[in-house]
Amino acid sequence: MSTVPPEIDTPEIMVDADVLRRNIERMAAGVAAKGLALRPHAKTHKIPEIAALQLVAGAVGLTVATIGEAEVFAEHGAADLFIAYPLWVTERSGQRLRQLGRRARIAVGTDSAEAARAMGAHVAGADVEVLVEVDSGHHRSGVAPAQAVQVARAAADSGLRVAGVFTFPGHSYAPGMPAEAAEEERRALAEAARLLTEAGFEVTRVSGGSTPSALLTEARPTTEVRPGVYVFGDAQQLELGRCAPEDVALTVAATVVSRHEGSSGVPRRVVLDAGSKVLGGDRPGWATGFGRLADFPDARITALSEHHATVAFPDGEGLPALGERLRVIPNHVCVAVNLVDEVAVVSGGEVVDRWRVAARGRNR
Amino acid sequence: MSTVPPEIDTPEIMVDADVLRRNIERMAAGVAAKGLALRPHAKTHKIPEIAALQLVAGAVGLTVATIGEAEVFAEHGAADLFIAYPLWVTERSGQRLRQLGRRARIAVGTDSAEAARAMGAHVAGADVEVLVEVDSGHHRSGVAPAQAVQVARAAADSGLRVAGVFTFPGHSYAPGMPAEAAEEERRALAEAARLLTEAGFEVTRVSGGSTPSALLTEARPTTEVRPGVYVFGDAQQLELGRCAPEDVALTVAATVVSRHEGSSGVPRRVVLDAGSKVLGGDRPGWATGFGRLADFPDARITALSEHHATVAFPDGEGLPALGERLRVIPNHVCVAVNLVDEVAVVSGGEVVDRWRVAARGRNR
Repeated sequence: MSTVPPEIDTPEIMVDADVLRRNIERMAAGVAAKGLALRPHAKTHKIPEIAALQLVAGAVGLTVATIGEAEVFAEHGAADLFIAYPLWVTERSGQRLRQLGRRARIAVGTDSAEAARAMGAHVAGADVEVLVEVDSGHHRSGVAPAQAVQVARAAADSGLRVAGVFTFPGHSYAPGMPAEAAEEERRALAEAARLLTEAGFEVTRVSGGSTPSALLTEARPTTEVRPGVYVFGDAQQLELGRCAPEDVALTVAATVVSRHEGSSGVPRRVVLDAGSKVLGGDRPGWATGFGRLADFPDARITALSEHHATVAFPDGEGLPALGERLRVIPNHVCVAVNLVDEVAVVSGGEVVDRWRVAARGRNR
Repeated sequence: MSTVPPEIDTPEIMVDADVLRRNIERMAAGVAAKGLALRPHAKTHKIPEIAALQLVAGAVGLTVATIGEAEVFAEHGAADLFIAYPLWVTERSGQRLRQLGRRARIAVGTDSAEAARAMGAHVAGADVEVLVEVDSGHHRSGVAPAQAVQVARAAADSGLRVAGVFTFPGHSYAPGMPAEAAEEERRALAEAARLLTEAGFEVTRVSGGSTPSALLTEARPTTEVRPGVYVFGDAQQLELGRCAPEDVALTVAATVVSRHEGSSGVPRRVVLDAGSKVLGGDRPGWATGFGRLADFPDARITALSEHHATVAFPDGEGLPALGERLRVIPNHVCVAVNLVDEVAVVSGGEVVDRWRVAARGRNR
């Protein structure tokens, strides 16, 4: 059982450096063995030191969600960035994209002729590639594969360079769904890539892959995958069976601040000082609670307020003591990291470094 | 219909200065008319400029959730702070509390004899008051009123000055619950205050009140209320009927980045560039979605990812255009503000100022 190092004040996010490195190397090896390129999503960690580890392990570049994240990682030396988002480009954001294109290889997403034309009006001629986003079943952004050619033509007609297609199989984040989502992703990307090729486009990039589906993805037509969460793992991946407890690299150190043995009508519980302002408030319907306790697998986080986690324990299992320090695994690690300015890096039971979450809050 | 000023890039949090002032004045007048003191919870806004407006309007002091928040507001001149949280005090946090006690009037919460003794070991003799937290039905932290004396005695025996009791009627945040929660709060506070008085404690502070219940609270035994959300309002308060659409002072400016008329099996929707990393991910079971659109009351935010809000519109209502800029009301404004470094202050359709969220991320 790992403990919380004494120099940590709670609540604080801790990253286990050794587990992190193992996760990075394992995904890099698994993806390489399939002949795919790895372009990890840096929105998960927002930390240049972790991006550097991913690139050293063989990632071809980084994925980001916003122009602001791209700017931060470019400032820290990233040379190849994909903003996997259907940007609506304005004069101001177009200027930022053009500047980015001068310091790194930049690709951006688009999923409509209108957005492609708006982008073309502001960045045509700049060194920015476009990937058409297709919907592979998640029904968020992205066009049906059959409409990809229309979007690509609007982009090309607006002076943009179309490099390929991408999708996000977000429906892989549900019990039993990874294999089905990976197959739907493959079909959608294959159809869109085929149609673009038939329409005369040179399709060099076919990009997919979430953490649940990345290692289920095969090369051809897919050329690269963009998993993010795998670096840390989280309670969602744990409950989906996509990582093991020993693969979880990020936990939130918390203290038991309130403890109640319970009585009729009043639940038996402890309260931790880690709430939604450090764990994040995400809770999918299928999750067992608002996160998990690393060292108490049967405990359930039944409620979360901003600075309180209410934790129920099974009858017969002793409640932890007041003042005891525990490690909480957030449900969704990407939103947890985005809540803090820095993380404590732990190895061998000690805090060995602190990393700044340099791209925290870069929402635009 | 308010629009998004042209100088705003999306997503960005906007605060309507005029609505904010009206909300602050209305709550101050309503609470004063009942003979109660108002001690607004500053965790909602974390912004010294807003705290100053509350204090000018008659607030007796501020409530905060953490020592770090207390430090920020004390640095900005707040003279009377209540950390309404059952702190587990360590040597390091005790030192910070003692320093705070030298620059402001400080009160803290406790809900167990153990926590009171830990606090006493580190801050006894310092200028810090203690309020015993009682559970009025929310079943988070807090002891049953009957146990309040035991906690107060442990605090007093540890050299701490016990000033009274407090509770948080968090169960008021549900449809139909405010009146019932306010009555349970009154009963719990009255019983705890009576027992403490009978045990020889001088009870000068009896503190309650959430935004849904604050104006349902009567003076005696309660001496003060601690609403927070009322300054801004949010989609939860709107759907609970505790504020009107015109009372919502904070919105997130967002752009339509993806638009889909829908077809068989694929929902009709638009996607906005405001996701859980700016709106927050809170969604109580009774909410209609992950926030509301200020100018489209029938639209529903059916899904939220980190940078995407998926919005469904009723059949027959036209979808907004790609590139259109809309205002989103977050479900829970306290967690939304905590995601940004500054907010744009808007009046008369223009950005008139920017305020720094000075206590953002101060979780400990």
